[in-house]
Amino acid sequence: MNIVEEGRVGGIWEEEACGQAPVWAHSSINHDPQLHHQHGNEADAEALTIPNDASSSPRDKSGLRRPLLQRKNTLLPDSSYSVEKHQAMVGANVSPIESLDYELIENELFRQDWRSRTKHEILQYVFLKWTFVFLLGVLTGLVGFGINMGVENIAGAKFLATTKFMATRGFIPSFLLYAGSNAVLILISSLLCVYISPAAAGSGIPEVKAYLNGVDAPNIFSPKTLIVKVLGCICTVSGGLIVGKEGPLVHVGSCLASILGQGGSKKYHLTWKWLRHFKNDRDRRDLVTCGSAAGVAAAFRAPVGGVLFALEEVTSWWRGPLLWRAFFTTAVVLVVVRTSMAWCKGGTCGYFGEGGLIIFDVEGVKSEYGLLELFPVIVLGTIGGVLGSLFNSLNAKFVVFFGGVLNKRWPSAKVLQAVLIALLTATISFLVPWYAECRPCPEQKVGVFPVGAECPTHGRAANFKGFHCPPGTYNDLANLFFNTNDDATRNLFSIGTRGEFRKSSLLIYLASSYFLAVITYGIAVPSGLFVPAILCGATYGRLVGMIMGPIAGENSLDEGVYALLGAASFLGGSMRMTVSLCIILLELTNNLRMLPLIMFVLLVSKTVGDSFNDAVFDIHVMLKGFPFLDAHPEPFMRHLTAKEAVSGPPVTFNAVEKVRTVVEVLRTTSHNGFPVLEENGAYLCGLVLRSHIMVLLEKRKFLPRLDDSYYEEGIHLSSADFAKPGSGKRMKSKIENLVLSQEEQEMYLDLRYLTNTSPYTVVETMSLAKAFTLFRQLGLRHMCVIPRKPRPTEGCPIVGILTRHDFMPGYLHSMHPHLRG
Amino acid sequence: MNIVEEGRVGGIWEEEACGQAPVWAHSSINHDPQLHHQHGNEADAEALTIPNDASSSPRDKSGLRRPLLQRKNTLLPDSSYSVEKHQAMVGANVSPIESLDYELIENELFRQDWRSRTKHEILQYVFLKWTFVFLLGVLTGLVGFGINMGVENIAGAKFLATTKFMATRGFIPSFLLYAGSNAVLILISSLLCVYISPAAAGSGIPEVKAYLNGVDAPNIFSPKTLIVKVLGCICTVSGGLIVGKEGPLVHVGSCLASILGQGGSKKYHLTWKWLRHFKNDRDRRDLVTCGSAAGVAAAFRAPVGGVLFALEEVTSWWRGPLLWRAFFTTAVVLVVVRTSMAWCKGGTCGYFGEGGLIIFDVEGVKSEYGLLELFPVIVLGTIGGVLGSLFNSLNAKFVVFFGGVLNKRWPSAKVLQAVLIALLTATISFLVPWYAECRPCPEQKVGVFPVGAECPTHGRAANFKGFHCPPGTYNDLANLFFNTNDDATRNLFSIGTRGEFRKSSLLIYLASSYFLAVITYGIAVPSGLFVPAILCGATYGRLVGMIMGPIAGENSLDEGVYALLGAASFLGGSMRMTVSLCIILLELTNNLRMLPLIMFVLLVSKTVGDSFNDAVFDIHVMLKGFPFLDAHPEPFMRHLTAKEAVSGPPVTFNAVEKVRTVVEVLRTTSHNGFPVLEENGAYLCGLVLRSHIMVLLEKRKFLPRLDDSYYEEGIHLSSADFAKPGSGKRMKSKIENLVLSQEEQEMYLDLRYLTNTSPYTVVETMSLAKAFTLFRQLGLRHMCVIPRKPRPTEGCPIVGILTRHDFMPGYLHSMHPHLRG
Repeated sequence: MNIVEEGRVGGIWEEEACGQAPVWAHSSINHDPQLHHQHGNEADAEALTIPNDASSSPRDKSGLRRPLLQRKNTLLPDSSYSVEKHQAMVGANVSPIESLDYELIENELFRQDWRSRTKHEILQYVFLKWTFVFLLGVLTGLVGFGINMGVENIAGAKFLATTKFMATRGFIPSFLLYAGSNAVLILISSLLCVYISPAAAGSGIPEVKAYLNGVDAPNIFSPKTLIVKVLGCICTVSGGLIVGKEGPLVHVGSCLASILGQGGSKKYHLTWKWLRHFKNDRDRRDLVTCGSAAGVAAAFRAPVGGVLFALEEVTSWWRGPLLWRAFFTTAVVLVVVRTSMAWCKGGTCGYFGEGGLIIFDVEGVKSEYGLLELFPVIVLGTIGGVLGSLFNSLNAKFVVFFGGVLNKRWPSAKVLQAVLIALLTATISFLVPWYAECRPCPEQKVGVFPVGAECPTHGRAANFKGFHCPPGTYNDLANLFFNTNDDATRNLFSIGTRGEFRKSSLLIYLASSYFLAVITYGIAVPSGLFVPAILCGATYGRLVGMIMGPIAGENSLDEGVYALLGAASFLGGSMRMTVSLCIILLELTNNLRMLPLIMFVLLVSKTVGDSFNDAVFDIHVMLKGFPFLDAHPEPFMRHLTAKEAVSGPPVTFNAVEKVRTVVEVLRTTSHNGFPVLEENGAYLCGLVLRSHIMVLLEKRKFLPRLDDSYYEEGIHLSSADFAKPGSGKRMKSKIENLVLSQEEQEMYLDLRYLTNTSPYTVVETMSLAKAFTLFRQLGLRHMCVIPRKPRPTEGCPIVGILTRHDFMPGYLHSMHPHLRG
Repeated sequence: MNIVEEGRVGGIWEEEACGQAPVWAHSSINHDPQLHHQHGNEADAEALTIPNDASSSPRDKSGLRRPLLQRKNTLLPDSSYSVEKHQAMVGANVSPIESLDYELIENELFRQDWRSRTKHEILQYVFLKWTFVFLLGVLTGLVGFGINMGVENIAGAKFLATTKFMATRGFIPSFLLYAGSNAVLILISSLLCVYISPAAAGSGIPEVKAYLNGVDAPNIFSPKTLIVKVLGCICTVSGGLIVGKEGPLVHVGSCLASILGQGGSKKYHLTWKWLRHFKNDRDRRDLVTCGSAAGVAAAFRAPVGGVLFALEEVTSWWRGPLLWRAFFTTAVVLVVVRTSMAWCKGGTCGYFGEGGLIIFDVEGVKSEYGLLELFPVIVLGTIGGVLGSLFNSLNAKFVVFFGGVLNKRWPSAKVLQAVLIALLTATISFLVPWYAECRPCPEQKVGVFPVGAECPTHGRAANFKGFHCPPGTYNDLANLFFNTNDDATRNLFSIGTRGEFRKSSLLIYLASSYFLAVITYGIAVPSGLFVPAILCGATYGRLVGMIMGPIAGENSLDEGVYALLGAASFLGGSMRMTVSLCIILLELTNNLRMLPLIMFVLLVSKTVGDSFNDAVFDIHVMLKGFPFLDAHPEPFMRHLTAKEAVSGPPVTFNAVEKVRTVVEVLRTTSHNGFPVLEENGAYLCGLVLRSHIMVLLEKRKFLPRLDDSYYEEGIHLSSADFAKPGSGKRMKSKIENLVLSQEEQEMYLDLRYLTNTSPYTVVETMSLAKAFTLFRQLGLRHMCVIPRKPRPTEGCPIVGILTRHDFMPGYLHSMHPHLRG
């Protein structure tokens, strides 16, 4: 680390108030340690750890570390993490976070670029946009298909081998085979996650949400993460854990989008140099949004549901044309998936048949229902709300506890934890059906049976598993436990199979799958939450259906429909989505007549769940420490003004600044935006970004004298030089690698050329709630706070800069403790 | 009209530059006529018509009148209307328009109110919100049901009587009965529209769009409009015109929402006084959004489609929680509609049976299709795009031509026009089948026939109309022409009825329904566009299906499916929606397997259509003269700065201003927002609204001396006094009714108490495109432009105010003619 003149930085340069150059000394570290949190929400780790005696300050470290959990009465404990860092796995080492630039940086260069853009280039840009979403759809569809094929083949081989062993060698060897293969699969998956790409753990939806909210964390969309996610997802799902592949597919779609959008990966020499018009965060955000929609579409074969999922759950900003492009992407995904599946019908895909992508057909079911059916709907909705929110809080507690204990002391314990959970799952799912009583097969006239309705069957994808039962009998617990999650769901949803399960079996399965789901989500493997939620929900839904059956008599709905409603209720109670879940479930089950019932179940379960805690993905966004901006300001922000949220005068530059000063400021602070003042600090010229200054420094665009400027000299830089690198690729570290001669350090930089001359400003007396609205709606990175009475003689023309960090409730509470009550 | 001192106002008060009180004289009418368009986009009609010699000015009247059509290459002619006024019917008298206040007006009063709000009041507010959407759902459902019942009963009686006459009295009497009853129905409808509520004409979707964009036009949501819309809609649809009831239902839903939201109607003594927390434009906007969703849900029985329609087509701003509330509203609508229909099954509703609400069941159809079906999909999409966009431009031309000719000279000609079109429609729909050849009935084994499949039938709601044909034969043209639009659609969509229509019949029907649809939409009756689009689209869709049938052979899709795809293509080509249309069509036809095909048809037709012109509702928004803010700035706005869009220094007030000055400014200008300066114009205190000043004046809250202030005196006004009245209820006229004594006029007003001290500001050098983004995203009414270099000695602390009007491309083009190229 080569921070220069560390001693000198501390409290020496104290001069006049802002208005004279160089003013950056006000941010000297020892003098005012808080300034480091002021703008630029990533902070140089070293700079932050410089000890200071400000422990009594309301902004000290412990204050900073208690940011997000106070916002609502979540059930989470007060853990130790910083708003400025995020954790790929809870409890793991934190990584720096950066905000994305969505604002139009209106500087001279940009204006020239705007004016000079030819019609040809605009066409090229539009063409590129549509090509990208087309490619994105194709790739996501193929990857989704590949994951399904991998899972079905591995799981199929595993189940077949185990069944064979059971028939030939008995209990112990078959159990060992089953548990062993599961453990090995999870071991691979967790090793990949822990040692290669920690960002690939979990569902990835919190990461995508955070990115689309404007938070860029390193590696969340890197090619490494993509590969680990895909491989890990195959291993985890086929390893028999109670996890799904839907969340991971959303992450995969977003990864693909991000990699496409940044023109490949520099590290692996996959960059396309001609993508210069795509080098900004806005276009990438749009692409990632389409990617998340494509992921859902590939996971559920639900194109409309995918678009709505992206709209309702994932994105923070939505533009009209995006609906249109996301729709196109999911349409492409659908065609790819359909075509691949048609190709598989010939038997060329191993064990992968029709069923791989979950589609639960509940068509042809009685669809007449009246107001009477509102009663079970309310019951199911309430159960779903209670169990779903309980799931959220139990899971959060578990994640925080183990994350804190394991990752702090012994990181590779994560691997052990995953393997232990795999063994536990395997044990439960093997032993429980083993000790269950065999049931006689139903007569074949009960109803229209789905595929695999012969009884009993051995192998996989069947409604009536034989397991170890004698011929003519089946094991209803094996139907659920000794199956892939998709097949278990299909069994629960199956229509016309009244009486297939015993109530006790369903209760046992509910308890164990709920317990396993709670402890599984959050361990170091790629794991989705949709499937666990659907499994638990469908189980108690079917249970309620079995209880309702005798009451409602002939008129009652099918147990499969109850299972569907139960699944909806758990999803609603845990994830708190409405329209998108509704559409996804309809697209899964292909029966629009269920719409009103599903709508009401979701309404009830979301309402019940909301009264307890936050949605599960929001909780995980918090746990991972992403500085997420909610859609609305917290009520307490009404009592603060913008001025009360900023911390003293910012580090400013003069319009033409000495290279030495610039370099030292960049070295000693970690801010990403600097106000530029003109005429000796008399008025605000605008805001310049650290990354843009870095380009000037690296290209050695210096002026020999103070009175020169690029306007006369010509800068000979194009907008391509200032193109933003892709997600997670920061330039910050480079300031330490920059070596400048003494002569060069005495030269000048004309910052006006790069200064965004029209940053968004708010007056210092504006309430923080109103400022938040502006900041959030426009997706800003820096917002300038200007004084109410501009007086050049009295002080700085800028009061401070608000960043994402300054709106974090935890931070504000630590600054203004009286607001806590 | 009592504008005081008209002569004196002209160019006398010329004093110092902004900074000294009173500065309002700068806006004197003759001196600078342009200022009237500067902020406040309604303008006093009288004040605007004062003649001026500024015809050479780029901002002269003709410039102002050419605003919106230049934005894209629409096919519309350059008509004569103003951006400040709107026309309920194109060509009719214009009415003043006002912007809505979505910004938080942060003044002292508001802050006190915010702080003092108790938990009880917040709960009351939340309860109210949900009660309102519940009531809205119930009412919209009931009204939708009532409209359907009315239409089905009137049309049913009409068709039965005509058929009876045909059998007993022959051609002439039955034709006279048919045409006469249609003409009378349309006469009633158009008389209501022209003489009682012109705002009820047309579909109402442009009005709802404009309102949700922040434009408040008088009477668009008044109770009078609601009643006329409902009655007119029943008459129009049962009168046999090629119109639908879907658009009107959207308007009805929004009307109901608006009336609920403003707590009933003051005029009819239906106000609820306790709704004080709901008296703001934000809450009303949310409610109207839910209302539009409810309208679609009631029209199509498509709850999810309704929510998406509101999201995609109608709203300009969307908030997450709204999705959730709109979803609840449509769920309630669905329950109400289902319950009403169940109640009707007993035969208690006259001729109203199952079919009233269009649901075209295409279930049970072959759903296997591969890549081969992409070919007809592309063909249909292209046809839909071409015919749809052609429809938009022909209809716009027709509306502008007749609107201009008829309404200018002879307003009641609108009634005649409507009746003539009704007679023309009746003649075509009676004569064409009369001269058609009768066809033999098909054998009953062709397929699974829908309801009314016996052949031939007489009366209504049937697949094989007998009309005048002998027994054993049917008239395929009568199936289409001599039917309600819903039944014609049902015939076109019907499955398994291959060969029901001749190609020539379909061609004849396509041509006449297309022609009639073009001339019908825009006349002075409530008329929706969905049904005409579905009819035309389904006709050519079925035609394509008949042509494709022999080519594809056994594998071809059913003709009914082709009709569905054709309907989708025309809707996409004309209205340019994607996801919402897709979902609406799916909910109508209850077959999710059609999803991919419908998606692709919509993609193709929208793309084709977009390359020709704007969506039909956007065109009508323009034609009606609403100053609609698009989601994105026009490209030319990049070349302008914010300063170039404002016009000179604004009319400002001092913080404590003499009553006489305030009154005179209010009388002589039409602005709605005034900057308030403090310390002799040294700095900007904020922005005060005309409506708030009016409250002070009316309540006589005057200060005897200049040095007093309300802060010491106490103002004794609550936020309820400043509550915004409902849509279309302006307070502006009241300034002319205000009578103040000489003594009172010499007193003072302390405006600081009411001044929004944190208006959103932009720096004058910001590009207009960026300023537009801010303005549009936050839904502002006034945006202050501040100078780059604030210098108290040099000039005004505010450069000007930007309003909605200043962003209108037509206006900007007239100011900066060089940008036109």
